[in-house]
Amino acid sequence: MTELQLTQTGVIDHVIKLFQENMPFNQLLGVRFVTEDDSIRLEIPWDDKLTGNPLQKILHGGVTASLLDTIGGLTAILSAVKQTQDGHLAELVTRLPTMGTVDMRVDYLRPGRGKRFIATGQVIRKGSRVAVCRMELHNERGDHIAFGTGTYMLG
Amino acid sequence: MTELQLTQTGVIDHVIKLFQENMPFNQLLGVRFVTEDDSIRLEIPWDDKLTGNPLQKILHGGVTASLLDTIGGLTAILSAVKQTQDGHLAELVTRLPTMGTVDMRVDYLRPGRGKRFIATGQVIRKGSRVAVCRMELHNERGDHIAFGTGTYMLG
Amino acid sequence: MTELQLTQTGVIDHVIKLFQENMPFNQLLGVRFVTEDDSIRLEIPWDDKLTGNPLQKILHGGVTASLLDTIGGLTAILSAVKQTQDGHLAELVTRLPTMGTVDMRVDYLRPGRGKRFIATGQVIRKGSRVAVCRMELHNERGDHIAFGTGTYMLG
Amino acid sequence: MTELQLTQTGVIDHVIKLFQENMPFNQLLGVRFVTEDDSIRLEIPWDDKLTGNPLQKILHGGVTASLLDTIGGLTAILSAVKQTQDGHLAELVTRLPTMGTVDMRVDYLRPGRGKRFIATGQVIRKGSRVAVCRMELHNERGDHIAFGTGTYMLG
Repeated sequence: MTELQLTQTGVIDHVIKLFQENMPFNQLLGVRFVTEDDSIRLEIPWDDKLTGNPLQKILHGGVTASLLDTIGGLTAILSAVKQTQDGHLAELVTRLPTMGTVDMRVDYLRPGRGKRFIATGQVIRKGSRVAVCRMELHNERGDHIAFGTGTYMLG
Repeated sequence: MTELQLTQTGVIDHVIKLFQENMPFNQLLGVRFVTEDDSIRLEIPWDDKLTGNPLQKILHGGVTASLLDTIGGLTAILSAVKQTQDGHLAELVTRLPTMGTVDMRVDYLRPGRGKRFIATGQVIRKGSRVAVCRMELHNERGDHIAFGTGTYMLG
Repeated sequence: MTELQLTQTGVIDHVIKLFQENMPFNQLLGVRFVTEDDSIRLEIPWDDKLTGNPLQKILHGGVTASLLDTIGGLTAILSAVKQTQDGHLAELVTRLPTMGTVDMRVDYLRPGRGKRFIATGQVIRKGSRVAVCRMELHNERGDHIAFGTGTYMLG
Repeated sequence: MTELQLTQTGVIDHVIKLFQENMPFNQLLGVRFVTEDDSIRLEIPWDDKLTGNPLQKILHGGVTASLLDTIGGLTAILSAVKQTQDGHLAELVTRLPTMGTVDMRVDYLRPGRGKRFIATGQVIRKGSRVAVCRMELHNERGDHIAFGTGTYMLG
């Protein structure tokens, strides 16, 4: 791994790379991490192996939960990075291994039907130790499939 | 598919088979359905592809959520079958395609470390249209990894 | 009580009156029901008796939960009325006594400080038997104090 | 106020007194704090002013949520006190004003009918900064009325 740059941009790139390349389950699902301007979202194409409901061709509720949890955790960590001054980023990086989800609620609004699914998140409670995020899953037509609310420990 | 027997036992076998054989995502995860006396549980062996935390060898939170959601939904449906008289089972079977999770909360108690994981569930609110279940995930040593609470629509 | 008019407007007035005049706990809290155009919200003035945190002058978390649950339930019922044709309103009215909250999540974002608090809600999952709502609590300055998510049984 | 004794017992008494005497909303509800051996529970007698459902004589969902939130927060704080050595209690006491609920889920299992209601809690995830509790509400006959799950910030 190339040397980590202890700037906000450097740490953000490092975190996204960890999620993308070092979390095998995200690769199993086929998750792509798409950054645009100042935001990040997940995208996943439909794949028959993600089918949940045995009688309809829709996403397994666990796939939805996985995408919402992943974007929620990533959003929480990136927000923490953005509110940390360069001088304190080293300390934040040492806490990365103990960051994680405390709890999450998923509300399933519609059957998970579509060709492509997009997960987005935003922080609704910021803090140095705990953050709370709201997450959403839509399909490529903009149908709103699920809401998530997650509480994340920032180490 | 062999003909469905419209008895409680026949419908229970039918539902378990649907979850086991017709939900590809459960097969992707490697879920086994274990019935014992009157109860059912899920088991899943550790597999590197299920890794979540990039810096530790622990289950992705989405795998935990998937297992809890699956055992919760299965427990809710089987409970509905058990409280349905044989004469009404045909009507229940027609509702199977529209059964599904309304919402779920997952509480992550410990890092998901282990060689094998076991998911169990119980109904805490019974109803003909909606059921609420509590679910638990333990590893093979009995460490309690996560709690779940899910609300399921029964058609 | 005057005779109930079995029109959407008549049933809406009836339901709001039930919440306002026949739920003593709402009166104990000092809740006012404010209708405007097609929407309804709750308002409550600060009162020392609602103090929760012993060391700060802020709302008890239970007051926040009460307001969110009340507006969530009311919003769910009014939405059900609005999607019911006049000919079926009598049947809906007979189900009112068994409508109620299945589950609710509250996210506390900021200390509940203010002179006046406003609770609003919207339906995110409609259904004939179950509805899911998102609720918000703000103070008179627009500070966002809490989010709620509730699942309601419609009889 | 008498001088605070910086022993575990002293701080526990101090915290319970704060909840009992300095949270007016608990007094408005009529909450009693009952300690027995090493545990604490809340008790509340039925009172018409706590009525929620306008068409049945049952507890307002907000009362249930208030009781669960209160016992959850108290249980989380007392657990933190018990795992803190005497030398660090002063620092914990300074954090008391910023302790509070991050999020809570309530599952309503049965109508809140009874002469007396008892709320109990237990810690399911311990931590120095965040604790997660499970709470239960029963009536005097032992009927299980509601479950709660709450995440608490410990300063």
